[in-house]
Amino acid sequence: MSQSVQRAAANGKSTALNAGDIPGLVQAGDRRALARVISWVENGDPRTRSVLRDLKPPATASRVIGLTGAPGAGKSTVTSALVRAFRARGATTAVLAVDPSSPFTGGALLGDRIRMQEHATDDGVFIRSMGSRGQLGGLAAATPQSIRVLAAAGFEVILVETVGVGQAEVEIASAADSTVLLVVPGMGDSIQAAKAGVLEVADVLVVNKADRPDTQATLRDLRAAVALAPGEWKPPIVPTVATAGDGVEDLVAALDKHDAWLDASGERARRRLARARDEVTALAFGVVARRLTVPDELAARVADGSSDPLTAAEELLAAAGFAMD
Amino acid sequence: MSQSVQRAAANGKSTALNAGDIPGLVQAGDRRALARVISWVENGDPRTRSVLRDLKPPATASRVIGLTGAPGAGKSTVTSALVRAFRARGATTAVLAVDPSSPFTGGALLGDRIRMQEHATDDGVFIRSMGSRGQLGGLAAATPQSIRVLAAAGFEVILVETVGVGQAEVEIASAADSTVLLVVPGMGDSIQAAKAGVLEVADVLVVNKADRPDTQATLRDLRAAVALAPGEWKPPIVPTVATAGDGVEDLVAALDKHDAWLDASGERARRRLARARDEVTALAFGVVARRLTVPDELAARVADGSSDPLTAAEELLAAAGFAMD
Repeated sequence: MSQSVQRAAANGKSTALNAGDIPGLVQAGDRRALARVISWVENGDPRTRSVLRDLKPPATASRVIGLTGAPGAGKSTVTSALVRAFRARGATTAVLAVDPSSPFTGGALLGDRIRMQEHATDDGVFIRSMGSRGQLGGLAAATPQSIRVLAAAGFEVILVETVGVGQAEVEIASAADSTVLLVVPGMGDSIQAAKAGVLEVADVLVVNKADRPDTQATLRDLRAAVALAPGEWKPPIVPTVATAGDGVEDLVAALDKHDAWLDASGERARRRLARARDEVTALAFGVVARRLTVPDELAARVADGSSDPLTAAEELLAAAGFAMD
Repeated sequence: MSQSVQRAAANGKSTALNAGDIPGLVQAGDRRALARVISWVENGDPRTRSVLRDLKPPATASRVIGLTGAPGAGKSTVTSALVRAFRARGATTAVLAVDPSSPFTGGALLGDRIRMQEHATDDGVFIRSMGSRGQLGGLAAATPQSIRVLAAAGFEVILVETVGVGQAEVEIASAADSTVLLVVPGMGDSIQAAKAGVLEVADVLVVNKADRPDTQATLRDLRAAVALAPGEWKPPIVPTVATAGDGVEDLVAALDKHDAWLDASGERARRRLARARDEVTALAFGVVARRLTVPDELAARVADGSSDPLTAAEELLAAAGFAMD
């Protein structure tokens, strides 16, 4: 570590943020460097490459927990309650709030930021939101990179909160060791639960707002759905009223149990391999995406029917230097 | 058109489904050929290519309407009500129900199929569901291709129903001329509406289940959100109780108004160009996706930290024959 890095880390701030110092600053936990690097990751800045290359893997692995669910399920409240619980154990905790549904994330996440305010003065907590800039595969590549940065900075727990239940969110959730899916009572029956992708992605199911009238029916539907799920691990179903803190201890206990199972079953190693594969694929796609820009003339030919889309796609690939089979 | 095609189209069934006859059969509206081709599209079957290449654009353009919203919003019920309304006008209508959230679509959509049953005996209606097979960009490429097939078969109205509110669903909705976003009262405030991507994707907003107590608050929040939306077209907000048919006429009127505006404003041409661009990009990505398979050895090196993901991605691209800059 250079002297300037040591000084900056000791001060808790740096004046110049020399690009060469950034990896050292990140690993020393410097907040300004951390925020800077995550912005680079988010924007696909070319400086990301050298920083990520120079970051050393952390001495102890971070515990990465994903939280996903439809808008209104209470993800921010549950996340905030988990931050409180992990902080009570003394674990440094980072929150990455990922919103793939809107390019206007800053605004949309305002409410969440307000709910997270209680942690603003806690030095052991780092909170960061990330939006989709509309690039194909953008967040699928940016999320594991940001997790890598937060892990290198030494956070013991990393909570990744994602809105929605679509394919993109499933990919983002797959960057976590444990994935929590939140549902609220009255959102529908077991068909809807299956639609939400419950069985495929959830390691722990949370029925939040469990003081609502339809709670018992929702719990029953989820139990029936979980009973049919394939695989050795049957997701526990935890009712919570996160605004009041009810059920949060049970949720932490369920997460601890899953964490122990990951090691006992060998599933952690399998997931890490799958995650590495996904990350490399997403990065390769990012490179390809930057090259595949459809020229106006080609788009116009497809729009007016004078060229079919498949032939146009082959033209595009050939122009980008990809030899067709 | 070959004699066998004419015969098959006249019979309403074909015995052999010779691959060369398929484009002709599709354009004659043969249901078995149509179902076959959409399966090919869904599975990325290599026969898709020649069929799509041989399909002639239809004499009159189809009207493509997308419907999206969170699970439980009542998309299937609203879709079914729209089928009824367009059939009452005499328009042939196709429904493409796209579920990106689950690879197990067949089962998850069972409930929808039951709700759609009233149209099962109507020859002017074709209903088809499509799931994600987990390929990157799979549905983003398959949806416009399927729409193209249905348009070539001469359907005057094509309704594309998609579950969810994530980035993938936005991409799918972008294949439509008009996009309807469904919300239900009590799902949250205007922050949640913004989170759901309302302002960016919706041409018409439907507040379904508008007999629920929170309806007025939801309408107020949406009006406030719409007032802030950029752009010339301000999405009308239509309350419905689709199960009772209430508000469906207003929804059709709002859709007609949007359809007229698309022509008057020149927006239809802009959207078609953007759609052609998206379709070509998605197809090119599909080709790339089939080539970019991360070898076990490479994934293992990234998982154990002996290689960084960016270097690994560059290795992968080089191995697939893509020259790096």
